[in-house]
Amino acid sequence: MHPYQKDASDLLSRLRKIEGQARGVQKMIQDDRYCVDILAQISSMKAALSKVELALLESHTRGCVAEAIRGDGGEEKINELMRVIRAGMK
Amino acid sequence: MHPYQKDASDLLSRLRKIEGQARGVQKMIQDDRYCVDILAQISSMKAALSKVELALLESHTRGCVAEAIRGDGGEEKINELMRVIRAGMK
Amino acid sequence: MHPYQKDASDLLSRLRKIEGQARGVQKMIQDDRYCVDILAQISSMKAALSKVELALLESHTRGCVAEAIRGDGGEEKINELMRVIRAGMK
Amino acid sequence: MHPYQKDASDLLSRLRKIEGQARGVQKMIQDDRYCVDILAQISSMKAALSKVELALLESHTRGCVAEAIRGDGGEEKINELMRVIRAGMK
Repeated sequence: MHPYQKDASDLLSRLRKIEGQARGVQKMIQDDRYCVDILAQISSMKAALSKVELALLESHTRGCVAEAIRGDGGEEKINELMRVIRAGMK
Repeated sequence: MHPYQKDASDLLSRLRKIEGQARGVQKMIQDDRYCVDILAQISSMKAALSKVELALLESHTRGCVAEAIRGDGGEEKINELMRVIRAGMK
Repeated sequence: MHPYQKDASDLLSRLRKIEGQARGVQKMIQDDRYCVDILAQISSMKAALSKVELALLESHTRGCVAEAIRGDGGEEKINELMRVIRAGMK
Repeated sequence: MHPYQKDASDLLSRLRKIEGQARGVQKMIQDDRYCVDILAQISSMKAALSKVELALLESHTRGCVAEAIRGDGGEEKINELMRVIRAGMK
């Protein structure tokens, strides 16, 4: 089991909310709602996704990466982690 | 009608895809999939949301903001636009 | 004169501070200071640059862009503005 | 010696360039140059700072963090790393 499973119910509830917001934004477009109100919803969705991203990244680092470092030195896992961080920061 | 309505079908199809990805990520967590694969999906969702955001922002600027500038000078609409840009850039 | 000139002394003082920080970070590296302390300085420099960026973007929108919209409709200036926002948001 | 010292000359040369750009942007403001050209310079400075940031973060992770994980388990170093990543990603 991957280390994020200890937070699974929290992650799932955040993602259900994001899924609901994606549906809500579609409804806002169909209802011709004001652009800036839609943009606020999208900004909230991005912030919510960043929280899920950081939670997964943290449990990945504490779990898989730390384990690999203690095992084979972690060269490969750290390369992979850096690619993820690079993608998330740009 | 707001100016983004001319792109409504494109925006709706992007948002349906994002909604589907939010469901897919929940499934990945339930299936205990590898953290880094989940992170790649989340990164793709954020990029997709940014595209919707920029499309809305562009039609808002060309439409509502430009109209306000031609009308009352646009002071208020530009203040609002700057708040949106500030939120999107941080 | 471009519209940002009314904020020129504030912008210049922010940029002088950023220039000083760029020198300070070089000194930190030469003094073999702790990585995380250097990263905090770089994070502060990026935040300071974003403030300069937003100030310039705001005066550009209120000045050059609004003027073009009142003049020739602003098609070209809005295209250019959207490219700048797109670059700043990614 | 901290692990980033192996890249010190590269980091210093990047930071000297950023320092020069900070001076260059001040000159552009004094010369009343076009806002969008100044914004392009600032965007280039932020990208250059991100490269320095990622290089430091990578050597920090491979060096200090991995060492702490092999030593005391790395609890504290991983907490610190996550704070840095969180700050860089927001």
